Amino acid sequence: MATLVVGSVAFDNVKTPFGTAENVLGGSATYFSVAASFFSPVNLVAVVGEDFSRQHERIFRKHDVDLRGLQRTPGKSFFWWGEYNGNMNECRTVDTQLNVFADFSPRIPREYQSSEFVFLGNIHPRLQREVLKQVRRPRLIAMDTMNYWINNTPGELRQTLKLVDMLIINDNETRMITGEHNLVRGAEKILTMGPKTLVVKRGEYGVAMFRKGSIFAAPAFPLKRVFDPTGAGDSFAGGFVGYLASCRSLTEASIRRAVVYGSVVASFKVEDFSLRRLTRLRRSDIEGRFKAFQKLMRFDSALGNGR
Amino acid sequence: MATLVVGSVAFDNVKTPFGTAENVLGGSATYFSVAASFFSPVNLVAVVGEDFSRQHERIFRKHDVDLRGLQRTPGKSFFWWGEYNGNMNECRTVDTQLNVFADFSPRIPREYQSSEFVFLGNIHPRLQREVLKQVRRPRLIAMDTMNYWINNTPGELRQTLKLVDMLIINDNETRMITGEHNLVRGAEKILTMGPKTLVVKRGEYGVAMFRKGSIFAAPAFPLKRVFDPTGAGDSFAGGFVGYLASCRSLTEASIRRAVVYGSVVASFKVEDFSLRRLTRLRRSDIEGRFKAFQKLMRFDSALGNGR
Repeated sequence: MATLVVGSVAFDNVKTPFGTAENVLGGSATYFSVAASFFSPVNLVAVVGEDFSRQHERIFRKHDVDLRGLQRTPGKSFFWWGEYNGNMNECRTVDTQLNVFADFSPRIPREYQSSEFVFLGNIHPRLQREVLKQVRRPRLIAMDTMNYWINNTPGELRQTLKLVDMLIINDNETRMITGEHNLVRGAEKILTMGPKTLVVKRGEYGVAMFRKGSIFAAPAFPLKRVFDPTGAGDSFAGGFVGYLASCRSLTEASIRRAVVYGSVVASFKVEDFSLRRLTRLRRSDIEGRFKAFQKLMRFDSALGNGR
Repeated sequence: MATLVVGSVAFDNVKTPFGTAENVLGGSATYFSVAASFFSPVNLVAVVGEDFSRQHERIFRKHDVDLRGLQRTPGKSFFWWGEYNGNMNECRTVDTQLNVFADFSPRIPREYQSSEFVFLGNIHPRLQREVLKQVRRPRLIAMDTMNYWINNTPGELRQTLKLVDMLIINDNETRMITGEHNLVRGAEKILTMGPKTLVVKRGEYGVAMFRKGSIFAAPAFPLKRVFDPTGAGDSFAGGFVGYLASCRSLTEASIRRAVVYGSVVASFKVEDFSLRRLTRLRRSDIEGRFKAFQKLMRFDSALGNGR
């Protein structure tokens, strides 16, 4: 089952306490695509400029990402420059240049229109709805958003939320959308706005997933070194939706497994700059860490007094 | 199997966004004792002043806490005044009066000396060793500490760490002791200092437990309202050690269950001021929330492709 993703393909400058990477491939749709590709074929819709070369193309093609929806436009691709502080818990944006992304208008190729799993990356909520108008009703629509749209286009965001099955955002965005500091109350509010599932990304503390009558919480995989967190959230979303597309199942059990697979892929992503770790990743690495997650979270109830 | 706890019994003023409580029973050994009492008898060693009344005694006795080790001294009991900010993620100490606690010298009654489970609450690390000199080798020694001792008596703390089986502290204290921001690396360092088990309390994000070759991570129980976090960490430790004492088992499986039982008791503690929720708590409430924790954390691996 193919997954359709619409979002940004960008070039990043990233500085962390461990080093610097310049002009490396980034963007939400990039991380999502490569992460999802370990589980299912991916149909990518994004826009790039003339700086996007055959070499960059090869990275996507190697991962079975369909590029027929990739628009090429005169000019430069979206550019982002971020620097992390010593503890990696804060990122300062040094520069953002929207470039060709400023006029991005997603056009969904005919071949993509029956994609059964759709991920609306972090773009204007009106554009997210434009995407939905161009596809046949998919089995699953998931979306991301960010503080910019929450603050500046709250009405548009509300309209889009009504149309989606899942919202995948971080804890701070949950608070901003709902005005609730308490995550459980915030989640309850969001579940009245449209999405049946809210997945809250909490960085080094893992993920909490809220559905009617059920909460699932998974820690982040404990790592000795977080090298570069850029794209971790998008890699989570890619592993999450990609896994669901691969198993074609939307039961509670499948969705919980998808949270863990998403967390697994995100944990690999942060081990190196840009896509470096993900492009070396094998499916067996993913299964190995999935098993490690089981060990990390497993406990049983006592028989008798626990001896 | 009785649990011996040495620490503070105090009176607190607490202000949260939900209200104010004045001169309520608090202190690390108080929360620990009542929390542990749901699982095993508790032997308490602490010091109180003349403001500690028969009414306060009754609270402990009702919970099967032995008070023969409670020293009564002329003067006032330890007093603490704290105010939480609107998001409950910061606590400002308005006032601390050590009072009779300033000269506390733990004397372990003969009847307590064969306690097989010992918890050294957050007191001077030299006093923690004095306690150990007065007991026969217990099956388990667990301890707590705080930033004050980490900064001001690091050598004493190192000596005490060599003598204990488990260290139960928060993430910031782990970083302070080891100088490592990364929790996994910090934990590895601590496991070379004496303790075979490190339990890291992460507040609303739950608990991570590190042992040689194994990590266990449990989220905090998702609550719609955190009313008063005071004593949550001590209640966790009480539930944790109390459960281990009750099942007399120190296997990995038992210790993981103990983490969950500790988390359960802490989650009840924060639902009201002081001991108000814990003194109304029944064992069946605890078992109910233990089951809810299982539901919160459970996921299975797929058979076939997950359908």
